[in-house]
Amino acid sequence: MTYCIALNLAEGLVMASDTRTNAGVDHIATFAKMTVLEAPGRAVLVLMSAGNLATTQSVLSLLRQRVGDDGQPAILQVRSLYDAAVEIGQLLREVISRDSGQHASGVDFGSSFLLGGQVGGEPPRLFNIYPQGNFIEATVDTPYFQIGEAKYGKPIIDRVVNFQTPLKEASKCVLISFDSTIRSNLSVGLPIDLLLYRRDGFQVSSKQRIGEMDPYYQMIRQTWSQGLRETFARLADPDWAN
Amino acid sequence: MTYCIALNLAEGLVMASDTRTNAGVDHIATFAKMTVLEAPGRAVLVLMSAGNLATTQSVLSLLRQRVGDDGQPAILQVRSLYDAAVEIGQLLREVISRDSGQHASGVDFGSSFLLGGQVGGEPPRLFNIYPQGNFIEATVDTPYFQIGEAKYGKPIIDRVVNFQTPLKEASKCVLISFDSTIRSNLSVGLPIDLLLYRRDGFQVSSKQRIGEMDPYYQMIRQTWSQGLRETFARLADPDWAN
Repeated sequence: MTYCIALNLAEGLVMASDTRTNAGVDHIATFAKMTVLEAPGRAVLVLMSAGNLATTQSVLSLLRQRVGDDGQPAILQVRSLYDAAVEIGQLLREVISRDSGQHASGVDFGSSFLLGGQVGGEPPRLFNIYPQGNFIEATVDTPYFQIGEAKYGKPIIDRVVNFQTPLKEASKCVLISFDSTIRSNLSVGLPIDLLLYRRDGFQVSSKQRIGEMDPYYQMIRQTWSQGLRETFARLADPDWAN
Repeated sequence: MTYCIALNLAEGLVMASDTRTNAGVDHIATFAKMTVLEAPGRAVLVLMSAGNLATTQSVLSLLRQRVGDDGQPAILQVRSLYDAAVEIGQLLREVISRDSGQHASGVDFGSSFLLGGQVGGEPPRLFNIYPQGNFIEATVDTPYFQIGEAKYGKPIIDRVVNFQTPLKEASKCVLISFDSTIRSNLSVGLPIDLLLYRRDGFQVSSKQRIGEMDPYYQMIRQTWSQGLRETFARLADPDWAN
C-alpha cells in the first residue's frame, strides 16, 4: 500500500508520501510516489499516487513524454489546475483501459492521484483524482485529502489542522500522522517525501526526504510518544474500574 | 460499520463495542453488539460482533435457544473457551450458508465475532472468529483484537497497551481509541458498551454504557484533546519550513 496526504492551506501546500510499494509481503521495494513538474514563475504541479504501480508509472511517463514546443511537459501549459486534473484523469482512464482490456485477470489496475499546485492567475488548488478519472477539489472546509492507508493517520489531522494552520505546524502534524501510520501498518514505510509550496512562490519552497535517521523526525517521534504517555498518565482512572 | 476491541491482559479482560448499525447513511439504528452469557462461578462468555446484523443476530438467537437440561444456553457447559469458539464458528457457517444459499444477491452475509471469557479451570482467553468460522487466539505478545473500523483507533492502543497494563489504564486507552474512531468515522457511534472482567471472578466485574453525557468520557475527551494540542505545541518546528 501507500500513504499520501496533501493539505491546501492559507499559506500554501504541504504534500507528503511514503515510498514503500509491495506486491505481497515478499516483494517490497522503494519507489518515490511524488512527482514535481515545474515551470518556475508560472506553474507548479505536484502529483502523488497510490494504487497499481504500473498504472501510475505509465501515467507519469506519458505526462513527461507529451512535451510542448518548449520541450517541457505540455501539461505545464494548462490554463488552470482544473484543466490539469482533467488531463490526468483522462490519461488515467486511457492507461487502465489499455492495460486491463485484454484479459480478465483479477488484477486491480486502479490508481488514485493527489494533484496539488498553482498555475499563474489562480490560487493554489488541490485535487483528488479517482481511478475512474473524475476528481474532487479541496476547499476551506475540507482542506486536505489522503490516499492509500489513510485511516491510522487521520485522527491527528482532524484534531489539529484547519485552513489557517501555518505550513510549519501542518508539516509537524503530517509527520506525526505518518508516524502513527508506520507504527501500525507494515505496508507504509520510510523514507517520507515531504514538500512545501508557499502560495504565489511558483516554485517548490522545500522538498525533504525524511528517513529513519533524520534527527527532526526522530525528535518528533520520541517527543510525541512521550507527550502522549504523559498526557495519558495524567488522565484520572474511571471509578468503575476498581 | 462497527468498532469493537477486546484485550486479554494479566488482570483480565476489557471488551468494548459501539452501538451504531447502518445500512446506507439513511438507515442508522442503535443495536448493542455485546452479549454476555454467564454461569456465575463457572463460566463467563462475552461476544461482540461486526458485519451483517441479520447474521450476527441469528447466531446469537441460536446460541440462546439451544439450551441444556438446566434451561441455560448449552454453550455455557463447554469444557474450554476454545470449544465455545468452535461451536460459534460452526453456527456462523450454518447461518451464512442458510441465508446466502438461495440467490446470488451481491449481499455480504459475513460477520466476525470477538469471544472473550473464562471457563472453570482455564485462564481467561480471547478469540477472533472469522466469517469463515475459523479463529485465532490472543497471546501475551498480541493481547488484543479489533473488528470493524479498527484502523483509526489502533495507533493509541499500539503505543500504550501491553499484556501487563492494568485494567483501569486499558479502559482509559480503549475510550481514547473510541474517541479517535468516532471523530473520524460516522459509521461508528455512541453509546459505547464497556465491560471489565477480572481474572478468576467468574462473573462480569463491571459493565458500563457510556453515552455523550457520561462525565468520565467527557473528561477523557476534553483532557486528551487538550493534552495532544499542548504536546503538539511544544514540538519544535522544522528548520526547513521557514
